[in-house]
Amino acid sequence: MLNFKEQAGQFELFLEQQQEKGLFKGAPQNLYDPCNYMLQLGGKRIRPAVCLMAAELFNPGISEDVYWSALAVELFHNFTLVHDDIMDEAPLRRGKATVYKQYTTTAAILSGDVMNIYAYRCLQNLQPANLPEVLRLFNKTAIEVCEGQQYDMDFEQQDIVAEADYIEMIRLKTAVLLAASMQMGAICANASQEQADMIYTFGLNLGIAFQLQDDFLDSFGTEAAVGKQIGGDIQANKKTFLAINALSLADATTAMELSRLKDIKGADKLSKTLDIYQKLGVDIACKKAIEQYTSKALEALDKIDVAQERKQAFTDLLNFLMNRNS
Amino acid sequence: MLNFKEQAGQFELFLEQQQEKGLFKGAPQNLYDPCNYMLQLGGKRIRPAVCLMAAELFNPGISEDVYWSALAVELFHNFTLVHDDIMDEAPLRRGKATVYKQYTTTAAILSGDVMNIYAYRCLQNLQPANLPEVLRLFNKTAIEVCEGQQYDMDFEQQDIVAEADYIEMIRLKTAVLLAASMQMGAICANASQEQADMIYTFGLNLGIAFQLQDDFLDSFGTEAAVGKQIGGDIQANKKTFLAINALSLADATTAMELSRLKDIKGADKLSKTLDIYQKLGVDIACKKAIEQYTSKALEALDKIDVAQERKQAFTDLLNFLMNRNS
Repeated sequence: MLNFKEQAGQFELFLEQQQEKGLFKGAPQNLYDPCNYMLQLGGKRIRPAVCLMAAELFNPGISEDVYWSALAVELFHNFTLVHDDIMDEAPLRRGKATVYKQYTTTAAILSGDVMNIYAYRCLQNLQPANLPEVLRLFNKTAIEVCEGQQYDMDFEQQDIVAEADYIEMIRLKTAVLLAASMQMGAICANASQEQADMIYTFGLNLGIAFQLQDDFLDSFGTEAAVGKQIGGDIQANKKTFLAINALSLADATTAMELSRLKDIKGADKLSKTLDIYQKLGVDIACKKAIEQYTSKALEALDKIDVAQERKQAFTDLLNFLMNRNS
Repeated sequence: MLNFKEQAGQFELFLEQQQEKGLFKGAPQNLYDPCNYMLQLGGKRIRPAVCLMAAELFNPGISEDVYWSALAVELFHNFTLVHDDIMDEAPLRRGKATVYKQYTTTAAILSGDVMNIYAYRCLQNLQPANLPEVLRLFNKTAIEVCEGQQYDMDFEQQDIVAEADYIEMIRLKTAVLLAASMQMGAICANASQEQADMIYTFGLNLGIAFQLQDDFLDSFGTEAAVGKQIGGDIQANKKTFLAINALSLADATTAMELSRLKDIKGADKLSKTLDIYQKLGVDIACKKAIEQYTSKALEALDKIDVAQERKQAFTDLLNFLMNRNS
């Protein structure tokens, strides 16, 4: 059994192989250059790696179908990042210029489109026995990811967002793709429907926990551990789990203070907002929610019908993802 | 055998059925409203109609697979229009505001994305026997359409475009989707590979002829027959078959005059450019090219191994499309 890092490495080799065979090579260059630019920005390759891990969990020999599914998921994910960055007007991605900044908005739209189509093109290589089920799951997931992005943008225009709606948004925007990546691997490894559903449940809850952890660390992490400046969400008035919970717990005076802080910038804004968050206990509420979703994930993992030691890579991954602040 | 109009009507019924069943209904509204807005702009439903026609050519009973293929193609086409209109900064589509003008660029990007994914979601309803072949053809075509759009935008930045490159661009941007629509219908109707390829060849050449006809009519048609103002391409300095041929045939003096005309606007620009086109004979060259591609289309249609009278709907369609100026 390979661990997460090793599977990510295996995927990287497959990706390089496909690039050597012609993926995003050739003309028109103005279409494919942005695709290559985006792919070489790297990232942790979490989704394809967990796809391979899930396949190996159920079947020691990882088939070509699994690799094609992994590549489909990674291309789809990259496509969404390219388009999201336009919509969010984000200048940087992984410390480099976003695609639409590096090229043009037009280039980013069309190159994103073609990356999405190439994701589907990967799936055409699947065995006929796996194709219908994987395609159905992939379509459902892709639609949900779009819906999640729309909710995220909608929320930015709303004064009040309910916690349940926020969780539903991150489920759609982030968690389902992680879950589907695992389930696609499981399907291609001939896992039973029940087992494939269970790894999906694991991935879904892990995905939600991971996103909540992201919210938490952006406010309460340390720069050294997180690897980026703390407080970005607060400075940008982002509607995170912390922000929406603070608003729902605040009394009238505190709500007015939060509203005043929204309109200013700088260190004062950050420290005073964090202060309110802690007084209201939203940091603790967030930690509790993270623990709940982590437990649900582990519960699902526990129910999967393979020897416990085969699950080590998943337990390690969960610990790695959830202990980024340590 | 139903004719083009009747098949378009059949498709419209299927589309309405799907809408009643929930297509683009539900939340988030900001995602699905633009999809519905785009679909209700209408259009001639050429691609789904020829998909149904091609199926009926080979098999009298049109299966569900054919309808799903037709809807996939129509959704894909609409998705490309939504994104193309952003890229081309087009304010109007079918006399109404384009999606990004009616809503926002952000809405148009994400709604276009989800329409593309819904196109693939239609294909998941195909019988397992048809799915792999149709998916492969659809992917190949979708990639080509993106490449065609990129070449089109590239050409606008180039001083000189070769005729062969222009033909290749319209093949990719326009013709392959018409051809694939027909071939998808043929595949779902169990036509042999050879026969399915033949209807593709028919559609491809018809598509090129149709686009060249569009170029011709925009300069040499009558407003009454074409249904829009004449001269739009010339006023916008678009690189049409006429424009690129004029530039390649012009002597130094005429080339300078064409270059001067590019920088002005108004009636004078139109009449003087048309004058040069006629002197250089590019109108005749264009008519000749249209005839060539029309002949190639008819040749392919002729080779299709079904009773000639079953082909009537296609011959009628070709005559209808190619005689819009009469």
